[in-house]
Amino acid sequence: MESIKVFAPATVANVACGFDVLGFAVDSPGDEVVLKKTNSGKVVIKEITGDEGRLPKNPLSNTVSISIIQFLEKIGIEQGIEITLHKKMPLGSGLGSSAASTVAGVFAINELMGNPLSRSELLPFAMEGERLACGSAHADNVGPALMGGFVLIRSYDPLDVIKIPTPKELYATIIHPQIEVQTKDAREILRKQIPIKSAIIQWGNVGGLVAGLMLNDYGLIGRSLQDVIVEPIRSILIPGFDQVKQAAMQAGALGGSISGSGPSMFTLSKDRETAERVGRAMEVEFKKINIGNEVYVSKINENGPVVMG
Amino acid sequence: MESIKVFAPATVANVACGFDVLGFAVDSPGDEVVLKKTNSGKVVIKEITGDEGRLPKNPLSNTVSISIIQFLEKIGIEQGIEITLHKKMPLGSGLGSSAASTVAGVFAINELMGNPLSRSELLPFAMEGERLACGSAHADNVGPALMGGFVLIRSYDPLDVIKIPTPKELYATIIHPQIEVQTKDAREILRKQIPIKSAIIQWGNVGGLVAGLMLNDYGLIGRSLQDVIVEPIRSILIPGFDQVKQAAMQAGALGGSISGSGPSMFTLSKDRETAERVGRAMEVEFKKINIGNEVYVSKINENGPVVMG
Repeated sequence: MESIKVFAPATVANVACGFDVLGFAVDSPGDEVVLKKTNSGKVVIKEITGDEGRLPKNPLSNTVSISIIQFLEKIGIEQGIEITLHKKMPLGSGLGSSAASTVAGVFAINELMGNPLSRSELLPFAMEGERLACGSAHADNVGPALMGGFVLIRSYDPLDVIKIPTPKELYATIIHPQIEVQTKDAREILRKQIPIKSAIIQWGNVGGLVAGLMLNDYGLIGRSLQDVIVEPIRSILIPGFDQVKQAAMQAGALGGSISGSGPSMFTLSKDRETAERVGRAMEVEFKKINIGNEVYVSKINENGPVVMG
Repeated sequence: MESIKVFAPATVANVACGFDVLGFAVDSPGDEVVLKKTNSGKVVIKEITGDEGRLPKNPLSNTVSISIIQFLEKIGIEQGIEITLHKKMPLGSGLGSSAASTVAGVFAINELMGNPLSRSELLPFAMEGERLACGSAHADNVGPALMGGFVLIRSYDPLDVIKIPTPKELYATIIHPQIEVQTKDAREILRKQIPIKSAIIQWGNVGGLVAGLMLNDYGLIGRSLQDVIVEPIRSILIPGFDQVKQAAMQAGALGGSISGSGPSMFTLSKDRETAERVGRAMEVEFKKINIGNEVYVSKINENGPVVMG
């Protein structure tokens, strides 16, 4: 194989109660990476589309190239690689944009080199990309982008990633309002100390959400989609947050919150029809305050990255 | 029916990571309550055995009678009741001693009056008993004592109690060292503010434990039985805690921690043989430091209270 094209999905991290430990993948949007073997012995970025010139092309500063370089170092092979990256989702949107690109890259290089590593062994390389992009090596976007489905990061040290089965009729609605929030900023406004009372509410909901997903109990999923720690602080950065969320609930959503560090918001619903109605209701609210937006409706993506050619 | 005898099981609350939200019931030990209808119109305590005279016989100060009084007020029936309480487990042991008695009492009075309330409707009455005994109306002992099995208290307000399916070969080993810790004291030494980093580790483990139980993944159950918030503080009150826990792990336990607010300790194991070996190993460690103890080995109790006659 001389070249490969891989798609990797957008992801919703945190999922209300599960700050830094829960995330899920969606069918769309997602990013595409094309890798081509060269004889240069070097990893270079040939082209990036869809980023409006904002992503670095220096291979040591770009999350995709850096994780490919570390992968090649790990398996001990010197291989020239030319990278083309097609960004197909907004940057800084809270949809795991850097994770999708990075996961597409490490999945592609592993395929191109004949799969020397298992899928779960690829996770640390993608996490290094996240460290470069966000300042910390979290896994709640790269985990689900790589594994597909709903993923729990039980532990970071040692890394312990568990795929949680989900109900068949569970749909996600994501709305991306056209404002920008930097993950680093969104992390800095959080408190370092929290009341134990709030933490207890939060871990009750994490348990409830995992149980609800595995019991196919949509009501329990909805009741568990509560975040008493992060959402009250970060939602201040999203104009219209309360009204948009209220409109989603009135339209039949089970629950929802901020996607990752925002500004995108996600909701979960019981079927596609409801998920689409919820999307329209959220869209209307953002439009009322003159914020342009895109809506994505999708099942939970079960596959993770896919070879496109 | 003029009289009834009910058994209710001991319970392990908190279960390492799940402070205030997780608990499970065991087959033994447990308490027994005998109720007899009288014509006095009053609820009285006739006899308490096994408490060495330590429990109050004033019906307004005893958790069993007070929850029966509130039950009768709620259903609006004046009925004289004579209570006999057989304590069959140590008081202040961290095994949900007051919860077992209270649950046996409310379950018994409901049966005696022809089951006007459903089982889950009995929970608030038992929780009031806990408020009297411990100073706060927590549900992680009365929940599993009443419902049986492994129980998640997703939320206290509103009350939302979920039964978590457990693997068939999961056994609990409980050891009660003969020292006493008051729940109120054990609660007061906890910090009111905790680092968000620790809280994230904790809710990762709560998610992992719920997933492990439902996936029949014994390894995941074991890895999730970690408590970085409460155990490091409360274990100071239990002489030999670290050595006893280490001995249990070496004997093959999946994991373990303090039962409730202590001083009892619990471990979970994959089968009865291992659970018994773990019990012997823990026993030896407490004996080394001259602390008398009792060991209980049991499956997770699936039934909750049982009518004995």
